[in-house]
Amino acid sequence: MTISVQNPPADPTDARTALADRLALSGEAQDLLFRQARSANTFTDEPVSDEQVEAIYDLAKWAPTSMNNQPLRIVLVRSPQARERLVATLSEGNRAKTAAAPLVAILAADHGFHERLAKTFPHFPGARDLFAADDAMRAQSADLNATLQVAYLILAVRAAGLAAGPMTGYDAAALNDEFFPDGGHKVVAVVNIGRPGDDAWRDRLPRLDFDEVVTTV
Amino acid sequence: MTISVQNPPADPTDARTALADRLALSGEAQDLLFRQARSANTFTDEPVSDEQVEAIYDLAKWAPTSMNNQPLRIVLVRSPQARERLVATLSEGNRAKTAAAPLVAILAADHGFHERLAKTFPHFPGARDLFAADDAMRAQSADLNATLQVAYLILAVRAAGLAAGPMTGYDAAALNDEFFPDGGHKVVAVVNIGRPGDDAWRDRLPRLDFDEVVTTV
Repeated sequence: MTISVQNPPADPTDARTALADRLALSGEAQDLLFRQARSANTFTDEPVSDEQVEAIYDLAKWAPTSMNNQPLRIVLVRSPQARERLVATLSEGNRAKTAAAPLVAILAADHGFHERLAKTFPHFPGARDLFAADDAMRAQSADLNATLQVAYLILAVRAAGLAAGPMTGYDAAALNDEFFPDGGHKVVAVVNIGRPGDDAWRDRLPRLDFDEVVTTV
Repeated sequence: MTISVQNPPADPTDARTALADRLALSGEAQDLLFRQARSANTFTDEPVSDEQVEAIYDLAKWAPTSMNNQPLRIVLVRSPQARERLVATLSEGNRAKTAAAPLVAILAADHGFHERLAKTFPHFPGARDLFAADDAMRAQSADLNATLQVAYLILAVRAAGLAAGPMTGYDAAALNDEFFPDGGHKVVAVVNIGRPGDDAWRDRLPRLDFDEVVTTV
């Protein structure tokens, strides 16, 4: 059985409630991006094309980063050799599904993002030197903003009607050495991308209640 | 002039292109969340209600975190006293707009998220102890996943037809001490929320091209 991301099995825990009507975004769009979309563990054989990735990036790129610094870099792992090198660095539980996914992307923070600020933040010419002078501050900003961009990208994958399978279980040192030997990048996540396959996910896990997360002062 | 987030001024740099048609998400929803939404620097006086925040959280909560750990905590700064304490910790350039915003939220990573894993990840009873045993690993997972959740929340604010003004310019030590004296949380961002006001933003800043961000191996 092939499950389409737009029509997953009904699940009472994530049914649309009256709260959905308080939003400007349509219920269908809410479902596609948040409520019915799930992190997939299996995929069909349908390939994910460069044209799809181009459209996904073209949407995600608009979401905000600090000083518009856009540190996210995306490595599409398409060759069997590269896939093998990647899989070897993953936690045991992430290997088989990553070996079988139609597309795998390595998502990394570029600690050299400041070299592009002349393009991305042109009205403040001193920005490049500010970040060049402080390696720790630059790394922190790169990691934080690339992580925001990973989240934007996951939602943009869902916007394409595909499922994402983001993972943080890997040998970080080995993965960075293998794909970013320059030492100037840090992997934030690895994400499998494709159409969900058989038994792509388990039951919805519980979310924290509003009162467990939100306080007012 | 009041600018609605649904109808910002036309801007050629972020006009919808043919790439938008390759996505399953409607063009209107793409515009609302990514293409026309902007980080606002000014807001109207229209309040943001707890009911709106409840709906925003109820959408954002579904997006994925590692082992469903959901470390994001949200502090709504509603009293004038708390607003003053917050504003004092911000960078100079963020003070006036934050003092005037209808609602300000402090978004933090809870390094004690593992105490809720029995609820959020019930099929693996050992999860709590795994994280309890390694403070550095737990802090890293909290910060990474709360940052993903900040991004989800920014997009959910936009889904409510509101504008977000996320900020990372503040005295982090002072802000953490002021609002999280327990030492068990780390602020990831502060975000102003409301309807965009006069001159809410400057021209769109350039985004990196696909070829500057994406490589294939």
